[in-house]
Amino acid sequence: MQFNRLDHVGIAVSDLPAARAFYEQVLGLEAAHEEVIEDQGVHEVLYRMGDAWVQLVAPLGPDTPVGRFLAKRGEGLHHVGYSVANVSTALSDLQAAGVEMVDEAPRAGSGGTTVAFAHPKSAHGVLIELVEEGSGHRGERGGA
Amino acid sequence: MQFNRLDHVGIAVSDLPAARAFYEQVLGLEAAHEEVIEDQGVHEVLYRMGDAWVQLVAPLGPDTPVGRFLAKRGEGLHHVGYSVANVSTALSDLQAAGVEMVDEAPRAGSGGTTVAFAHPKSAHGVLIELVEEGSGHRGERGGA
Repeated sequence: MQFNRLDHVGIAVSDLPAARAFYEQVLGLEAAHEEVIEDQGVHEVLYRMGDAWVQLVAPLGPDTPVGRFLAKRGEGLHHVGYSVANVSTALSDLQAAGVEMVDEAPRAGSGGTTVAFAHPKSAHGVLIELVEEGSGHRGERGGA
Repeated sequence: MQFNRLDHVGIAVSDLPAARAFYEQVLGLEAAHEEVIEDQGVHEVLYRMGDAWVQLVAPLGPDTPVGRFLAKRGEGLHHVGYSVANVSTALSDLQAAGVEMVDEAPRAGSGGTTVAFAHPKSAHGVLIELVEEGSGHRGERGGA
């Protein structure tokens, strides 16, 4: 198991324009990437912070993972993404160590990445995302 | 308002040895710093991840901010720390923008840092920590 770096912090928001106004006008961050990820049911905005990202995720509807999270817990910290060289290998390593995965196989993330989520109940309450950079938007998203 | 980088992600844990076993034996991270911060009522362990940190915080007792967080929400993501050049200036800038602070003045953090927390209700549910590096443990904690 080898994590390269902290890739991003994912923040669940219900009102994306209001959250963007806070991060951009109050905190002074500049949006670097915006994408609707149908597979994950989210609309994301990414801000570059050192060699990591802050990711705002707003749900595409109430019956999505982020929509259900917001209904239960409200806006706030949602997950942490770690950069790995190979998601398949990292996923297998975690399963071998007894960690329950949300995803049994890697799937497409935003910006050309490949990702897999580990279940919070196996990780002291933290939803962990494994992120493997792709060639697609690597320059835009940055990289190791 | 100027954030330099994402300094750390703070994770609240109730069982520090069990959490350390997960981060160190399962995820393969190496502890870089450990400290009891009486002022914040926590025992922290820091892991270096790229130019950011993962921080585990265990409460020194139930009647502490992290102890109350755990009683209400359980283990999980607790706060995000951003590196700033000057906490006093950043704190004033946030107050001028209408953000409610937990700390009305900067106070001592771990590793020789100076910190101030902004209230989650002013920041879309996220407890935000402003972190100014000090000269004390700068090498050990890293820096901008």
